[in-house]
Amino acid sequence: MKINCDMGESFGPWIMGQDESLMPYLDMANIACGMHASDPQVMLNTIRLAKQNGVTIGAHPGYHDLQGFGRRNISLSPDELHALFIYQIGALHLMCQSEGVPLCYVKPHGALYNTMMKDDTVFITLLKAMQQAAPSLPLVCMAVPNHDQYQQQAHQYGIKLWFEAFVDRAYADDGRLVPRKEPGSTYNDIDAIQAQALSLIHHNQVTTLTGHTVDVYADTLCIHGDGPQALPTAQLLARLLHSKGTSE
Amino acid sequence: MKINCDMGESFGPWIMGQDESLMPYLDMANIACGMHASDPQVMLNTIRLAKQNGVTIGAHPGYHDLQGFGRRNISLSPDELHALFIYQIGALHLMCQSEGVPLCYVKPHGALYNTMMKDDTVFITLLKAMQQAAPSLPLVCMAVPNHDQYQQQAHQYGIKLWFEAFVDRAYADDGRLVPRKEPGSTYNDIDAIQAQALSLIHHNQVTTLTGHTVDVYADTLCIHGDGPQALPTAQLLARLLHSKGTSE
Amino acid sequence: MKINCDMGESFGPWIMGQDESLMPYLDMANIACGMHASDPQVMLNTIRLAKQNGVTIGAHPGYHDLQGFGRRNISLSPDELHALFIYQIGALHLMCQSEGVPLCYVKPHGALYNTMMKDDTVFITLLKAMQQAAPSLPLVCMAVPNHDQYQQQAHQYGIKLWFEAFVDRAYADDGRLVPRKEPGSTYNDIDAIQAQALSLIHHNQVTTLTGHTVDVYADTLCIHGDGPQALPTAQLLARLLHSKGTSE
Amino acid sequence: MKINCDMGESFGPWIMGQDESLMPYLDMANIACGMHASDPQVMLNTIRLAKQNGVTIGAHPGYHDLQGFGRRNISLSPDELHALFIYQIGALHLMCQSEGVPLCYVKPHGALYNTMMKDDTVFITLLKAMQQAAPSLPLVCMAVPNHDQYQQQAHQYGIKLWFEAFVDRAYADDGRLVPRKEPGSTYNDIDAIQAQALSLIHHNQVTTLTGHTVDVYADTLCIHGDGPQALPTAQLLARLLHSKGTSE
Repeated sequence: MKINCDMGESFGPWIMGQDESLMPYLDMANIACGMHASDPQVMLNTIRLAKQNGVTIGAHPGYHDLQGFGRRNISLSPDELHALFIYQIGALHLMCQSEGVPLCYVKPHGALYNTMMKDDTVFITLLKAMQQAAPSLPLVCMAVPNHDQYQQQAHQYGIKLWFEAFVDRAYADDGRLVPRKEPGSTYNDIDAIQAQALSLIHHNQVTTLTGHTVDVYADTLCIHGDGPQALPTAQLLARLLHSKGTSE
Repeated sequence: MKINCDMGESFGPWIMGQDESLMPYLDMANIACGMHASDPQVMLNTIRLAKQNGVTIGAHPGYHDLQGFGRRNISLSPDELHALFIYQIGALHLMCQSEGVPLCYVKPHGALYNTMMKDDTVFITLLKAMQQAAPSLPLVCMAVPNHDQYQQQAHQYGIKLWFEAFVDRAYADDGRLVPRKEPGSTYNDIDAIQAQALSLIHHNQVTTLTGHTVDVYADTLCIHGDGPQALPTAQLLARLLHSKGTSE
Repeated sequence: MKINCDMGESFGPWIMGQDESLMPYLDMANIACGMHASDPQVMLNTIRLAKQNGVTIGAHPGYHDLQGFGRRNISLSPDELHALFIYQIGALHLMCQSEGVPLCYVKPHGALYNTMMKDDTVFITLLKAMQQAAPSLPLVCMAVPNHDQYQQQAHQYGIKLWFEAFVDRAYADDGRLVPRKEPGSTYNDIDAIQAQALSLIHHNQVTTLTGHTVDVYADTLCIHGDGPQALPTAQLLARLLHSKGTSE
Repeated sequence: MKINCDMGESFGPWIMGQDESLMPYLDMANIACGMHASDPQVMLNTIRLAKQNGVTIGAHPGYHDLQGFGRRNISLSPDELHALFIYQIGALHLMCQSEGVPLCYVKPHGALYNTMMKDDTVFITLLKAMQQAAPSLPLVCMAVPNHDQYQQQAHQYGIKLWFEAFVDRAYADDGRLVPRKEPGSTYNDIDAIQAQALSLIHHNQVTTLTGHTVDVYADTLCIHGDGPQALPTAQLLARLLHSKGTSE
C-alpha cells in the first residue's frame, strides 16, 4: 500500500502546503497541472523535488479555476473535458520527460474527482481520454464499496484503476466519506488517524462514524498536505507501511 | 520549401482566421498552445483538421497573455520561460499523440519569437528547453543574414533550426523585416506577393523596399492567416511549390 | 418599449458581433464587464460608441469564464457571487463616469441570467448586491408569466425590475423560451420576427410553438447581436418602436 | 505622517500576509484589485476589515499578472493602461461604496509603480486616467529628491500626490532605493528600522548605505506586510506617530 499526497499546489508568489517536509515520506506525488493550482515553474520544481526523493509522480488535473482551487463544479461538455484533461496530463508529462523521470499515473482533483465518482458520463469521458492519451497509466479513484462497477467500466477502456482510501476522514455506513461540512468528518487526532490507518492496512476495513465496519480495499492511502497533522500523518504511514522514514 | 501558417488561434467562442479554408494548402500548421490563443478544445480540433489534410504539426507556444495575443513583451526570468515553454509543447504533444499524429517542430509566437531573435539569453533559454524536452524537434526561426550565428548556437544544444521567410512582408536592407508600423511594410497585392515568393524560391533573395537585393535562405515560407490575401497566397504558394492544390 | 442588445463582447484581438452597425438602432447597450467577455479597453471603447449614439448603458456581468463565454454554470457560494457581481458593475460604473455618461441598469449574462431566473438563492443574492452597491439601478430579468413573484422579491430589496422579451426566440406554452437545442427554437425569418415583435408591442402576447397565445409583459425587447438577422431585426424594431432609424 | 501597507493580497485559497494582525496599526490600507493579487471576495473582506479598524482605503491596481504578482513588466500601450487602471479602481470603488466607506486614494503596485516612477509616458497615462475617473483622489508615489517634477506634472492634471518613504529599505546616495538584489538593501533589524523611521519623521532625512544623508519628504511611510519584522514595524510606527496602538 502506497502513500499519496497532493503536491505542487503553490501558485506564483503564493505558497501552499509543505512539500519539502512531506516529500521524503511519500510514495506518490500528485502534481497539480496549472489549471486549479500550480504554474509551470512550480510544476517543474515539484518534479525535481519528487525525483530527488525517489517519489513516483502522477498528474493531478482539475477544472480550470484557480480562484476556486478546482473545488467549484463547472459544467463541461464531454468534449471540453476530454481536451482539458489531456492538455494538463501532457504538460506535466513532457516536463517529467525533460527531467528524466516517468509520469506514472493520473489522479483527478477536487470537484472533478468528486464528479467522476458520481457521474458516469464524466468517469467514462476521463477513461476514454486516458485510453487515447495515456493508455498505460493507472487512474486513481476513491475506494468505494461498489468498486467492481468502476473496475468493469475502466476495463472496457483498458485502463487500470488504483483505489485510494483516507486515513483522516470519517466514513459513513455506505462506505463513502462523511461530507466535510458535517461534524466529525475529519480526524485531527493522530491516534484516531493511526487507528484508521491500521484498520485499512491490516483489515481492509474502516469503522464508520456510527460504529459499524465497512470493507475498503485500497491500493494507496491519501494524505492531505495542508492539515495540522499532515507531517505526523506522513511519518506515521511511512513507518507503518515500511516504505520510508522507518527510523522516525 | 514548405508553407507554414499559424493555425488554431480561435479561443472559446471567438473565431480567428479561416483554418478550414487554408489548411488544404499548407505543409506545416503552427498550432497555438493555449497561452496567447487557443484552448484545449480548439487545439484538439485543429490537430484533427491538420491530420485530415496530411499537414505536419508544430507547437506554437507564446507568452501567457490572451488579451494581448502574445504580442506584448513580458519580462520573464530564464527559469520562468523554460517552464512555460515546455508546458505548452507538452500539452500539444500529448494531444497529438492522442490523435495518432506526431509533433514535428516548434515555432515560438509573437513577442516571444521577436525577443528570441533579438535577445541571446532568450534564444539560449529556448534551445536548452528544447534540448531537455524535445531534442529531436527543429526550432523555427526567422531567416536572417546572420543565420550562421543562430545555427552555431543551436548546434551547441543539438537543436536543428528551420528558417522561415515571409512572402507578404517587405524587407529592409539589413535583411530584417520592415516593422509593421512603417509604410509599405506589408504587401497586400497578390502580384507583389508572387514576385517575392518567386524570388525567395528560385533565387534565395528578396528585393528590399529601397530596391536592393539581399540573400534570404529559407526552409519554409510563412503565410499570415488573417490577412485579406491569406487564401490566394496559400493557393499561390501551394501551386508554386508543387506541394498541393496544383489544380487551382 | 426599449430595444436592448449585448454589446462589447469582443476580447483582446478577437472580434465578436457588429457593435458599430447595431448601436445606432439600440436604446440600451448591455456591456460585458471583462469576466465572460470583453476587456478594459473593449469596455471603454464600447462606452464611447454608446455615448456617441445616445444609447443608455447597462452593466452585463457574468461568471468568470472567458473560454466558456459565461455560458457554463459555475457553482458559486452567495458570498462569492455577491462580490463577483459588484466587482464587475463597479468596473463598468467608473469607466462610464470617466467618460461622462451614467450607468443606468444591470442585466446578468448567460448562465448567470438563466440561474437567476431558476434559483431563488441566486436571484436574492443579486438583489442584495444591487441593494448594497447600486440601489437606484433597475435589474433586467426575463418576462415570465409569474413575473409578480420576481417583482415582489425585488421590491423587498428596493430594486426595480425591467422585464425583457425576445423577438427571435420561440415561446413554449408555459411562457418560457423553447430551449435552443430544440427544433424551431429560433426564428431566422424576418417575417416571423416581425410578427412576434408586433404581437409583443401591441398585444403583450406571443404565439407559442403549439399555436396558443400567452401573455408576456415586456419593458424591453432583446436583440441577439450575433445572428444573421441581427441588423435587419434592429432596424425593424427601431422602426416599429419609433425610437430610432425611422427613415430606414 | 501616515502608515500605509499593501493589504488584501491573498487569492482564492492562497493566503498572503497577516492582514488581521497588521490592520489595527495602519492608517492606510492599499487594497489589491484582482489583477496582480486578490479576488472579489478577498477585496470585500479586506474592505470590511479596514472599516472595522477605521483604516483609510486606497486602491492598489497593478498589471494583469497573477502568476508574476504584478512584478513582471508588461508592455502596455497608453490606451491599454488607461483602461486597465480605471477598471481596477472602479471595481474597488463600488465595493467600498457597497460597504459604506469611501475610497480615498490610489497607489499603483509593483512593476507598474516602478515604471510610473521611471517612465514619463506611464506616469502621465496614470494622471490622465485619475483626472477622468477619480479627480479628487490623491496618487501615492515614491518620495524622491526630484519630487517637484512629479508634483508639477500631477498639478497639470489636477491630481494631488502623496509621497511615501520606506523604513525598512536602504537608500542610495541618489535618494532612490537600493535595489532588492543588492546586499544591504533591506533592513531586517528592528533597531535599524527604528533609526530610519525616526530620521524620516523628525528630520525628513535618511542615512544612505554609504553614510551620507539625503532629504526625503514623505507624507506616508510604507510597511511591507510580508517580512518577518512586519508586525513589530507596524507597532513601532504606530507608537512613534501616535496614530494608533500607543499602549503597546
